[in-house]
Amino acid sequence: MAEIRGPLDPLTVPRFAGWTTFARLPRRDEVERCDVAILGVPFDAGVTYRPGARFGPQAIRQASRLLRAYHAGLDVHPFGAQQVADAGDVAASPFDIGAAIRAVEAGAEGVLSGADRLVVLGGDHTIALPLLRVMKRRYGRIALVHFDAHLDTWDTYFGAPYTHGTPFRRAWEEGLLLEDRAMHVGIRGPLYAPEDLRDDAGMGFEIAGAMDVAAVGAAAVARRIRDRVGDAPVYVSIDIDVLDPAHAPGTGTPEAGGLTSRELLAILRGLAGVRLVGGDVVEVAPAYDHAELTCIAASHVVYELLALMAVAP
Amino acid sequence: MAEIRGPLDPLTVPRFAGWTTFARLPRRDEVERCDVAILGVPFDAGVTYRPGARFGPQAIRQASRLLRAYHAGLDVHPFGAQQVADAGDVAASPFDIGAAIRAVEAGAEGVLSGADRLVVLGGDHTIALPLLRVMKRRYGRIALVHFDAHLDTWDTYFGAPYTHGTPFRRAWEEGLLLEDRAMHVGIRGPLYAPEDLRDDAGMGFEIAGAMDVAAVGAAAVARRIRDRVGDAPVYVSIDIDVLDPAHAPGTGTPEAGGLTSRELLAILRGLAGVRLVGGDVVEVAPAYDHAELTCIAASHVVYELLALMAVAP
Amino acid sequence: MAEIRGPLDPLTVPRFAGWTTFARLPRRDEVERCDVAILGVPFDAGVTYRPGARFGPQAIRQASRLLRAYHAGLDVHPFGAQQVADAGDVAASPFDIGAAIRAVEAGAEGVLSGADRLVVLGGDHTIALPLLRVMKRRYGRIALVHFDAHLDTWDTYFGAPYTHGTPFRRAWEEGLLLEDRAMHVGIRGPLYAPEDLRDDAGMGFEIAGAMDVAAVGAAAVARRIRDRVGDAPVYVSIDIDVLDPAHAPGTGTPEAGGLTSRELLAILRGLAGVRLVGGDVVEVAPAYDHAELTCIAASHVVYELLALMAVAP
Amino acid sequence: MAEIRGPLDPLTVPRFAGWTTFARLPRRDEVERCDVAILGVPFDAGVTYRPGARFGPQAIRQASRLLRAYHAGLDVHPFGAQQVADAGDVAASPFDIGAAIRAVEAGAEGVLSGADRLVVLGGDHTIALPLLRVMKRRYGRIALVHFDAHLDTWDTYFGAPYTHGTPFRRAWEEGLLLEDRAMHVGIRGPLYAPEDLRDDAGMGFEIAGAMDVAAVGAAAVARRIRDRVGDAPVYVSIDIDVLDPAHAPGTGTPEAGGLTSRELLAILRGLAGVRLVGGDVVEVAPAYDHAELTCIAASHVVYELLALMAVAP
Amino acid sequence: MAEIRGPLDPLTVPRFAGWTTFARLPRRDEVERCDVAILGVPFDAGVTYRPGARFGPQAIRQASRLLRAYHAGLDVHPFGAQQVADAGDVAASPFDIGAAIRAVEAGAEGVLSGADRLVVLGGDHTIALPLLRVMKRRYGRIALVHFDAHLDTWDTYFGAPYTHGTPFRRAWEEGLLLEDRAMHVGIRGPLYAPEDLRDDAGMGFEIAGAMDVAAVGAAAVARRIRDRVGDAPVYVSIDIDVLDPAHAPGTGTPEAGGLTSRELLAILRGLAGVRLVGGDVVEVAPAYDHAELTCIAASHVVYELLALMAVAP
Amino acid sequence: MAEIRGPLDPLTVPRFAGWTTFARLPRRDEVERCDVAILGVPFDAGVTYRPGARFGPQAIRQASRLLRAYHAGLDVHPFGAQQVADAGDVAASPFDIGAAIRAVEAGAEGVLSGADRLVVLGGDHTIALPLLRVMKRRYGRIALVHFDAHLDTWDTYFGAPYTHGTPFRRAWEEGLLLEDRAMHVGIRGPLYAPEDLRDDAGMGFEIAGAMDVAAVGAAAVARRIRDRVGDAPVYVSIDIDVLDPAHAPGTGTPEAGGLTSRELLAILRGLAGVRLVGGDVVEVAPAYDHAELTCIAASHVVYELLALMAVAP
Repeated sequence: MAEIRGPLDPLTVPRFAGWTTFARLPRRDEVERCDVAILGVPFDAGVTYRPGARFGPQAIRQASRLLRAYHAGLDVHPFGAQQVADAGDVAASPFDIGAAIRAVEAGAEGVLSGADRLVVLGGDHTIALPLLRVMKRRYGRIALVHFDAHLDTWDTYFGAPYTHGTPFRRAWEEGLLLEDRAMHVGIRGPLYAPEDLRDDAGMGFEIAGAMDVAAVGAAAVARRIRDRVGDAPVYVSIDIDVLDPAHAPGTGTPEAGGLTSRELLAILRGLAGVRLVGGDVVEVAPAYDHAELTCIAASHVVYELLALMAVAP
Repeated sequence: MAEIRGPLDPLTVPRFAGWTTFARLPRRDEVERCDVAILGVPFDAGVTYRPGARFGPQAIRQASRLLRAYHAGLDVHPFGAQQVADAGDVAASPFDIGAAIRAVEAGAEGVLSGADRLVVLGGDHTIALPLLRVMKRRYGRIALVHFDAHLDTWDTYFGAPYTHGTPFRRAWEEGLLLEDRAMHVGIRGPLYAPEDLRDDAGMGFEIAGAMDVAAVGAAAVARRIRDRVGDAPVYVSIDIDVLDPAHAPGTGTPEAGGLTSRELLAILRGLAGVRLVGGDVVEVAPAYDHAELTCIAASHVVYELLALMAVAP
Repeated sequence: MAEIRGPLDPLTVPRFAGWTTFARLPRRDEVERCDVAILGVPFDAGVTYRPGARFGPQAIRQASRLLRAYHAGLDVHPFGAQQVADAGDVAASPFDIGAAIRAVEAGAEGVLSGADRLVVLGGDHTIALPLLRVMKRRYGRIALVHFDAHLDTWDTYFGAPYTHGTPFRRAWEEGLLLEDRAMHVGIRGPLYAPEDLRDDAGMGFEIAGAMDVAAVGAAAVARRIRDRVGDAPVYVSIDIDVLDPAHAPGTGTPEAGGLTSRELLAILRGLAGVRLVGGDVVEVAPAYDHAELTCIAASHVVYELLALMAVAP
Repeated sequence: MAEIRGPLDPLTVPRFAGWTTFARLPRRDEVERCDVAILGVPFDAGVTYRPGARFGPQAIRQASRLLRAYHAGLDVHPFGAQQVADAGDVAASPFDIGAAIRAVEAGAEGVLSGADRLVVLGGDHTIALPLLRVMKRRYGRIALVHFDAHLDTWDTYFGAPYTHGTPFRRAWEEGLLLEDRAMHVGIRGPLYAPEDLRDDAGMGFEIAGAMDVAAVGAAAVARRIRDRVGDAPVYVSIDIDVLDPAHAPGTGTPEAGGLTSRELLAILRGLAGVRLVGGDVVEVAPAYDHAELTCIAASHVVYELLALMAVAP
Repeated sequence: MAEIRGPLDPLTVPRFAGWTTFARLPRRDEVERCDVAILGVPFDAGVTYRPGARFGPQAIRQASRLLRAYHAGLDVHPFGAQQVADAGDVAASPFDIGAAIRAVEAGAEGVLSGADRLVVLGGDHTIALPLLRVMKRRYGRIALVHFDAHLDTWDTYFGAPYTHGTPFRRAWEEGLLLEDRAMHVGIRGPLYAPEDLRDDAGMGFEIAGAMDVAAVGAAAVARRIRDRVGDAPVYVSIDIDVLDPAHAPGTGTPEAGGLTSRELLAILRGLAGVRLVGGDVVEVAPAYDHAELTCIAASHVVYELLALMAVAP
Repeated sequence: MAEIRGPLDPLTVPRFAGWTTFARLPRRDEVERCDVAILGVPFDAGVTYRPGARFGPQAIRQASRLLRAYHAGLDVHPFGAQQVADAGDVAASPFDIGAAIRAVEAGAEGVLSGADRLVVLGGDHTIALPLLRVMKRRYGRIALVHFDAHLDTWDTYFGAPYTHGTPFRRAWEEGLLLEDRAMHVGIRGPLYAPEDLRDDAGMGFEIAGAMDVAAVGAAAVARRIRDRVGDAPVYVSIDIDVLDPAHAPGTGTPEAGGLTSRELLAILRGLAGVRLVGGDVVEVAPAYDHAELTCIAASHVVYELLALMAVAP
C-alpha cells in the first residue's frame, strides 16, 4: 500500500510559503492512493442575499496553512492515519444553476470514484443537493447532520426550486435521506411562517437550535446527534452561518445569536465514532470576512471532519 | 379596523431591493393605523469618545432587510399581530444638545400621538432622556430596564449635564422612573469611583452585571428582571455596547468582557409577558462596524422588542 | 405645470437624516411631474468575477446624501431645472438572467412611460441591454457613449449569451445602436485576443483608451465624443471600473491604470450640449468599497448626468 | 542659543518604537527654544456629516513616524534649520462649540507666546477661526491660502454660526484677513447656490479650483498663489478633503474629483519664499482611513509646511 | 513618600486628547516613585506566521484611553493604590533576534531597577525569555501562568532556538521556572505530535485547555491556578491569541475555539491574592485588528494585572 | 520544440476557480520548456517598518486571476509568444537574513538553470541582492532600472548591512551593476541627508523622481530610461511603493506623492525593445491592502514585464 504523504514540513518550508492546497497537503494528482479527497466548489449563484461564496474554497485553503498534524483532542493524526489529498475545484457555470448542479454532481462522482470519502469546500448551500445524490449512490440513504442558522428546507424563491435555501427539501423529495436520522443544529432567527417548522418536521428533521446548544451544552448536543444517526452512514453539512456573526462575519445571510467556534468544534469532536462518509463547509464569503476569522474557523471545522473520518469505524 | 400591512414579500421583491425602511415595513404615512412606530434619531453630539452613531438609524434599517415574519421562539408574528410602521427620522441639530433634546422630545411626542408604542433607533444615549419624558407623560412613571456596559448615571462631563453618560441621572431627577423597578444589565469595566455605584443605588437601580449573566445564565437574569418590573409599564433601553466588542465592534465606548448576542436575545425573549411600552437601541456607530455585525445584532434586538410588544398583556 | 420639488433642505434636516432616496430627492410617487426618473436595478447574476453589485443602488443612494443643489461648472441646478425623482428599484430575480432582463425592460418601460428621461443605478452591466431596448423604442437607434475598462462586446461565457461582458454585442445584433456614433472610453488592460478589437470595430465602436485620456486630456476626449455623437440621442453607460481601482475599489473586475474621478467628471462635463436621453452607472460592488469612495464617485457621476440633461437641447 | 534637538535617531530607535510625537520630535517641555510649535486640536463637534476628526491629531502623529530629516526638494533640514517641538493637544470640550473655540484660542495663544510659528493638527475646520484670531494679534491681518474642496464661507447651519463650514466668513467679518490676498485652492463639487460664489468673492477670495489645477498644473497654481499673497504674512489652512477621496478617504465630507497628493505637495513646495507664519491640516477622520493613507498624506503636508517655514524670509 | 500621580482627569482633558501613554498615566520620567512600570517591547522578528506585533505596544496604549480609575470587581484603584508609570519602549533591532533579546533583558533590568513590578506590552512571545531572566534574578525561580492557544515549548524552527514558539522551553532549560508551579491556560488547536504534550509535561507544565475552560468555568480554572502557584512569585504571560479570533482578530497565529474576553478577565480576576510580580501581554498585531477590538481586550487584560498587583500580598 | 501551454481557459474554468498560480499558468513542473519562470520569495525579515510582504507572492498570484492573454498595447501574447510557468516559492527562513539571502540565491539559480528569464514576486527588497548576483553570473554586469519611492542605497540599519534599504549599495559594492546604466524612477519623500544623494550618484545612479514623472510625462521618462540602458541586459526592480499610497496602500513604507498605476504601466510599456532579462515586484504587504488594489496593480506590472520580455530583442 502506498505510503501516506502528509502536508509540507513547516520546519523546512515556512507556513506562508508554498502552493495553496488545503493544509498544504498533496494535490490529488500527486498521490496514487486517496482515502479522503478535498474538493472545492466555487459557486454562489444560488444565494438570496450577499453573494461571494465563489471565493470560499480558495480562501479556506489559504487560511488552512496553520493547521498542524496532530489532533490532541481525538489523539489522531488526521493526515497520517489516512491519505488526504486536495482534488482542486469543480468548474461550475455561475450563469446556470441547473448546469452547475450537474457539474458538481459529475465532479464529485469523479473524485469519489478514486477516493473513499469526500469533504467539500463551498460555495453556497445549493451544492449540498448534488453532493447528497452522489453520497446516496455510493452509500444508500444518508443520515444528514446539518449545522446552520436556517432550515434550508424551503420550497422556492422567485419560482426557482434549486437555491441555497432549498437543498434539503429537494434531497428529501429525491429520497436521498434517512428520514428518521436527519437533524438540524444551530437553527435560530426569524422564520417565514409556523409552516416552515411543520413542513420540516414532516420531512423527518429534528432540531437542536442555537438556544438549545446554550442551554444543554455541546456534549449533550453531540450525544443527541450520535443517538439520532446511530450506525448509519452520515453526511455532515455545515453552513458557516451556524456560527455567530462575531465568529463568522464572512457569510451571506448572517443571524445574531449563533454558536461560538468553540461550541461547534466541541459538538463535532463529540461525534467521534459515527460513520462519517462525507461532509461540506459552505457559505464562506471572504469579501465580508476580517483577518481570515471566518476562513480560519472553516478550516478548523474541516480539520475536525477529517479527524472524525480518521477515527470512524 | 384597518388591515395590517407587513414587510415587502421576499419571494417577489428580493431582500436586497426596495426602499430602506426597518424590516422593509411600510412607512408611517403609508398606513392609517399604527400600533408600533419605529423612529430614527440620528444624533451623536452627546458622546465622550468615538462619535458616529448619527449614522446608526439608517445602518440598522439596512441591516434589518433579512428579518423574516415569524418569531418561532415566542410563536408570534411581530409584524402581523400588530401594525408596525417606520416613522422615519427626527431632525435634530448636531450643534446644540439642548435643541436636539427638545426636537427628539417633540418628534417622539408627535409620533406617539398616532401610535400605541414606540421603538427608537439611535443615536447616542443622550436621547433616552427626552424619550423617557414622553413615556412618562403617556404612561406615568416608568420601570426602566437598561442594558449597557456603563451605568449612564454620571452627573456631568466638562460641565455638561446632558450627555450620553448622564441620561438616567437626569431622568431620575425629573421623576420619570419608578425607583424600585429600575435595573441595569450587562454593566462591566472600570468605573470612576466607588461613589458611582453608591449614587446609582441611591437612584434605585439594581445591577445584573456582565459577570452575573455568565454566572447565572440568561434565563435567571430574565426572571430577575421580570420580578423587578412586575406589571409596571416598562421601557427597555439598550446600549449596543452591552454586547462584547466581538459582537458589537461598531460602537463608541467599547468594553471587553461583554454579553454575546445570544445572551442578549435570550434575556429579552425571557421578558415575554412584561408590559413593554417603549424601547430604544442606541450607540450603533457604523464607521466602526464590520460586515454589518453590529447592525445585524441591533436589528435582531429591535425584532425581539417588537415580539415582546406583540405578546405583551 | 407642477412646481418642482427638490431635495430635503440640509439646513433643516441634517444630511445624515431622512429617507434614503437619491440625493434626498422625492420619490416618484410623491411628485406628479417627472422629468428625469432615477431607477435602481439591484441585479448582479451576470458577473464573471466578484459579485455584489446587487447592493449598488442602495449604496449609491446612501452616498449621494452629500450632493448639493447647484452645479457651478455648468451653472445649472440639476434638481431645479427639471423635476428629478427616485422611482425605486426594479425587482429582478437573481436566479434567472433571462427573467431578470425582462423585468428590467418592463420596469424601465413603465418608469419611462411617466418620465422624460431615465438614469439607472446598477447592478451589473448585463442590464444595459434591456435599457437600450427601451431607449430604442422611445428614441430610435441610440448613440452610445460607453465608459469602461472593458469592451463588453464579447459573445458568450460558458455558453451564456447574456452576461455583464456581452450587452453591447447583443445591442448591436438587435439593431439598437447608431453604429457610426458608438464609442468606448477608458478601455485598458489585457484582452482575450486581437479579434476582440476587430470585432468591436466591426460593430462600429471607436475607442478612446485610458492611455489616450492621459495623453490628450479630458477636454480633447470630450470634444471627440461630441463630434462622434453629433445631435443624435445619446445614452451614456458608465461602468464604474472605468476609474482606477484607487478611485473605485468597490467593483467586480478592476483593472490597474484607469481614469481618476476628476478625469471622468471633466469628460462628462465636457459633453454639455449633447442630446442626452438616458444613462446608467453600473458595477458598483459595495462589499469591496472603502469609506464609500466608489459610491461617492458614482453619485457624482450621476449628478453630472443629471446636469447634462438639464442643459441638453 | 540652545542647540537644536531633532527627531529620535532611526538607526538607534526603530521608527515603530518610542513615544508618539509628531515626527518623533521632542515635546515642547523638553526644549527651551522653540521656533515652530506643533499643536493638536482634537475637536470635531463642528462637523455636518461624518464626525471623527477628534482622533486626527494622534493619528497624524502616529503616521509621521516615517518622516526623515532632509527635504531634498527644497534642500533644507526642516527639523535642523529650526527647533520644531510638539506642544501636545488643546483640551476642548466636545459639548460646547463656543467654549471649545475659546479653549483653542487660549491654547494657541499660550503656545505661540513661547514659539515663533505654529502648525496645528486638527480637528475639524471650525478651529481655523480661533487660530486666525491669534495670528491676527501676532502678525496683523493675514493672507489666507485655503486648500479645500469646499468654500467654508457659508453663514450658518441649523442656526449655528460657528461650524466647520463657516470659519472664513466669520474670520472675514472679524477683520482677520487681508481681503485682496485670500485664496481658495482645490474647490470642487456641488454648491448650494450661485450666491455662494458671489458672497465668497465679496469677501475677497479668489479661487483655483480642482479642475484648474488639472488644467494648468501645480507650478502655475503655486505661482498664482505667490503672486496673490506677495510678502504678506501667510497662513495656510489645509482641509485634507482637498485631496481626492482616493488619496484621503479618512475625512468627513469627501467630494470626488480632487487633487492627488503629489499635486498638493507640489503646490506647497512651489510656495517656497512666501512669508509663512502659521498653518493647519484639518478634517482627518481616522475611522474612515485605510492603511494610514490619509494620515500619511497629512503628515507629509505638515512636513512641507515646516520646510516652507525653514526657508521663509 | 511621594504622592501618587494617576491618569489625566477625563473631565478636564477628553479621553481622545493628550499624549499616548498607557491609560494616560504619567511617564516614568515624570514621577520619582514607581511601584509598577509599564514597558513596551515593539519587536516581532520571532514570529512564524503573520508579523506585525511590533506595532502592538503603541496600539495597546492608544486603546487604553478608555480605562477608568476604579476596579469595582476587586474594589481597588489600580492607579491609586500604587504608582503606575509608563516607561516607554525598549529599542530592539528587528534584524537580530539575539541582540534584541539582550536589549530587552537590559531594558527590563534597567526599568525594574527603579520599580517594584513590571508589566510588558509586546511584541511577540520571544520576549518572554529575557523578561523571565530578569524576573529570576529579582525574585528567584518563578511560577509561570501562561495564557495561550499554543504551548510555546517547542524546540527550534528552521534551526532557530529563539523564536515566539520556544521561550518557555528555553526558560525551563535555563532554570528560570518553578517546575511544579507552571501552567498553561487556553491551549487548543492542532499540535505537531503527541511528543509536544509529553515534552511539555516533562518540563513541569499542567494544562487547562480552552475546552476545559468551557467545561468547568472561569472560577474553577482560577482556583486551579491559585492552587498550582501557591505563594510563589508569579509571572503571568498572556498571548492574546488565547482569546478566540472573534475576540482577538489582531494577532499572528489565530486558532478557532478560544476563550471569550469575559472568560479571560474572569480567570484573571479570580487570581486575586496570588503574589503577582510581573506579566506581559503579547502578540497583538494591529494590522489585523478591527475597531481596536483586540487592543481594547489587551488593555483590559493589563488593567486586570495592575489590579492584581494592587491587591497582591 | 514543446508546444506552449497558456493559462486555464476562462470560458471553461471560471476565473475564480482552479489552483492559484500566477495568471493561472502551468506550474514549472507541468511543462518541459520554460522561457520565463515566475518565482515567489515570501520573505520580509529585512523591513524597517511595516512587515507583511511574506504574504505578497501568494496574494499577487490570487489577484492575477483576471489577467487575459492578449496585450493590446504591445500587440503581443505574453503567455503565447513564450512559455511562462510558475516555479512556486523559495523557502527562506524568516529568522536569519543571511541564510535567507543564500536560499534566494540558490533558489533563483536553480530555477534559472531551467529557464531563460526570471520574474520574481517578493517579498521585501532585500531579495534584490541575491537575484542580481544570479543575473550577473548569467548575463554579466546588469543595467538596473529601479522603480521605488526610496533610493535603497543606504548602508546599514542597526548595524545590519543586508536589509530592504541597502540592496543596491551592496550590489554596487559587489560589482553587479553597469554603473553608467543604473537608474532610479519615482524617488520622492524625505531623505536622511544630502549625502544620500551624493553617495547614490557616486554609485552611478541617475534619478527620475516622482515629480519629474508628473512634469515630463511617462513617455519622456521611458525614453530617458531607454537611452540610459541602451542595449545592455536590463533588470527591472519594482518596489510597489513607487505608486502613490492611494494606488498601493498594501506596502510597508508608503510615501505620499507617488505615481499612478497608469503612469507606471505607461513607463514600462515605453520600454519595449530593451533587452529585459529579469525583474522583480517587491514590498507588497497584503495586510494593508484593500480590495486587492495593490495586488492587482502588482499583477499588471508583472504582466507588463512579461510582455516586454516577449517583445525583447
